[in-house]
Amino acid sequence: MNLLVVGSMAYDDVETPAGTRTHQLGGSVTYFSVAASYFTGVAIIGIVGQDFQSEHRELLTSKGIDTSGIEIADGQTFHWSGSYLNDLNDAETVETDLNVFANFNPTVPQKHQSTPYLFLANCDPETQQSVLNQMTDNLQLVAGDTMNHWIVEKRQPLDHLMTQLDFSVINEAEARMYTEKSNLVDVAEGILDEGPDNVIIKRGEYGAVLYNENQRFIVPAYPVQNIIDPTGAGDSFAGGFMGYIAATGRHDPETYRQAVIAGSVIASFTVEGFGLDRLANLTNDEITDRFFEFEDLTTFDTAIRLPLRNSTT
Amino acid sequence: MNLLVVGSMAYDDVETPAGTRTHQLGGSVTYFSVAASYFTGVAIIGIVGQDFQSEHRELLTSKGIDTSGIEIADGQTFHWSGSYLNDLNDAETVETDLNVFANFNPTVPQKHQSTPYLFLANCDPETQQSVLNQMTDNLQLVAGDTMNHWIVEKRQPLDHLMTQLDFSVINEAEARMYTEKSNLVDVAEGILDEGPDNVIIKRGEYGAVLYNENQRFIVPAYPVQNIIDPTGAGDSFAGGFMGYIAATGRHDPETYRQAVIAGSVIASFTVEGFGLDRLANLTNDEITDRFFEFEDLTTFDTAIRLPLRNSTT
Repeated sequence: MNLLVVGSMAYDDVETPAGTRTHQLGGSVTYFSVAASYFTGVAIIGIVGQDFQSEHRELLTSKGIDTSGIEIADGQTFHWSGSYLNDLNDAETVETDLNVFANFNPTVPQKHQSTPYLFLANCDPETQQSVLNQMTDNLQLVAGDTMNHWIVEKRQPLDHLMTQLDFSVINEAEARMYTEKSNLVDVAEGILDEGPDNVIIKRGEYGAVLYNENQRFIVPAYPVQNIIDPTGAGDSFAGGFMGYIAATGRHDPETYRQAVIAGSVIASFTVEGFGLDRLANLTNDEITDRFFEFEDLTTFDTAIRLPLRNSTT
Repeated sequence: MNLLVVGSMAYDDVETPAGTRTHQLGGSVTYFSVAASYFTGVAIIGIVGQDFQSEHRELLTSKGIDTSGIEIADGQTFHWSGSYLNDLNDAETVETDLNVFANFNPTVPQKHQSTPYLFLANCDPETQQSVLNQMTDNLQLVAGDTMNHWIVEKRQPLDHLMTQLDFSVINEAEARMYTEKSNLVDVAEGILDEGPDNVIIKRGEYGAVLYNENQRFIVPAYPVQNIIDPTGAGDSFAGGFMGYIAATGRHDPETYRQAVIAGSVIASFTVEGFGLDRLANLTNDEITDRFFEFEDLTTFDTAIRLPLRNSTT
């Protein structure tokens, strides 16, 4: 496989204005891997409990995802319960039961150690570091996400990990928390100062920003009218983004921009259904059409001379 | 003149993280007219008190703005006092003294009645309607802004005015309040349902959205690192937008998109200084450079075939 991802696998209970779902397949690597599977071959490093259902593994394998790196441990799968009733853009966590995820200490199978692209989805920075350490010199590009909990509780390992990332992919609120800044430029530069070559700030309904030393790219979110369940949008964005880069094998500014669009496209589908309902059932035409819709959403004709008056100052 | 604007003129006291200013020239038509003056000739309909300083009128006339429609009434100029210490994106109003603005009942001078472009800046919808009623058939395009106060207190006149607008230009929070929706698409469509042909939703640090029956255009805010004073950003946006359209005389989708960029460019300069400090002192080169920077901020190469895998579903 071309792309490896490590992070959480979960069963979620979610409540949104569109309804309620219990025991819904979730977790960061689940959304990430299905999103990336439209572009490239993906393998998962994760952990589940004895309760993990075979139909869910089959769903992943049906997308061409390598699930051989999923450990099945004694106990229950990580369980998250959240509500979007007050704010569709910000889940309120009702309950978190780490279960088997509390003892997640993955060994990367040898066949995955030479995977060229790696995504460290949101989990303990020490676990992320351990996986990164197990990779061979064949690694070409590594990106990582994190969350408020680790920024507070595992700052030092997180800081150390950041110095090794090609891309930090992080929510705007968490980027502000991490840098203790509020202005977008300050926040982006603050993250880059921590070591990654590039930062992608995920802004939810407002889209995403790609920042590095040489370029700034700001893209809106696709205007989805019927948002059913926002769970997994950020991980789907990361999956589309990394899947695109891994599929092209190119590491240049234009590819990164296109990859941000690809991530935005995939994430926009994710929120149109509960859990993986929509994300797991996309056609290539749907993805292509929405990718090019972004051009119409964002571009303007620059073959002009501005109608400026003669300066009066 | 090519463009007429009616609305408030004020003296502001503002407090921002960058400092404090008292008795600063402000008001919606002030920011609007200076912004628009870079593109076209603007005339103001407004009211001030006996305290209005000649240097401030001279500042406006130095930008080629026609100030003959400014009424000087007995009493003090409208005074607003606000603080951005808690949130740079949302002013906390400390005090509002309407003063002479409370009795603003403008008569449009005959020479202004045939102006082709009209902007109804934020003020009482009945006043906006009265000005609109005084215009001749020469009027080609009218746009209007409003605020939470009028949505609550003057809903009926506001609804009636909306049916006559070519463009509703409105803050995102107020658009949500007006439509009682939260989703961007629902909000945009909700505004269009009220009658205007087009809506522009101003999203502050997240930019702006242009919506009509046939097109959607979403543009980020220019990433300003050193925000000094956000006062007047929205009115500057509207001024740049309307000034651009009035200068070109074109009413087509591409011009509207460019006009949204022009508004975004001008607003981004406004916030770089207190009051009019930066806005009133721009060069054509500065405006042009930043306009084309927006291309680099937002565009991606679409001359590609997406690297999609063969569908596995």
